[in-house]
Amino acid sequence: MPLQADQLSATFAALADPTRRAILARLSRGEVTVTELAKPFDMTLPAVSKHLKVLEKAGLVTRGRDAQYRPVTLNGRPLKDADEWIERYRRFWEQSLDRLDAYLKAIQQDKGEKRHGRSR
Amino acid sequence: MPLQADQLSATFAALADPTRRAILARLSRGEVTVTELAKPFDMTLPAVSKHLKVLEKAGLVTRGRDAQYRPVTLNGRPLKDADEWIERYRRFWEQSLDRLDAYLKAIQQDKGEKRHGRSR
Repeated sequence: MPLQADQLSATFAALADPTRRAILARLSRGEVTVTELAKPFDMTLPAVSKHLKVLEKAGLVTRGRDAQYRPVTLNGRPLKDADEWIERYRRFWEQSLDRLDAYLKAIQQDKGEKRHGRSR
Repeated sequence: MPLQADQLSATFAALADPTRRAILARLSRGEVTVTELAKPFDMTLPAVSKHLKVLEKAGLVTRGRDAQYRPVTLNGRPLKDADEWIERYRRFWEQSLDRLDAYLKAIQQDKGEKRHGRSR
């Protein structure tokens, strides 16, 4: 299995959890310590640490080196490849929205014609 | 847990596997039957079916209704939300690339100055 594929799998797997996504959202506002991070989530420190390890392995967060104060920082780099992978499929969701749009327009037109028909 | 979060987790979890991403890549070229899908992957039908179930639960593929011929179709719609979630972090990978770029430029400049210094 190519390294690239593994990295991408690790990134997507790390994002496949609402708590981990919420942690990244919190970190997008600035680096914090694990204790600060745990507070709003009403989670135990070991539970937060477990999620952080998954994010760290995927390269999405980095920890400071200072043993006493190890701030957690968001690292967006792995998201670039995830974004590029998903973007290849853009036409597939734009197509489906176009079809929905066309369908809704057809319904409205149909209603309009019926209303027009009744008013004659 | 909000429904939205679950859908997003299901999407990311489905993408966290190289075989499932390869299946989506194959389907992006057109719908196929499970048998046709299994061939290039050198996988057993049950193994392919298992991956398809994960993709189907995440709404990324749909199966035809005909019991005999049930073609598999790519449905890109769930990727839209995944794309939107990732896009919020764009500045974090662009920043890190900017920093790398600045660093490489600084090294080159430094080298240039040293070379210039020696030539005097």
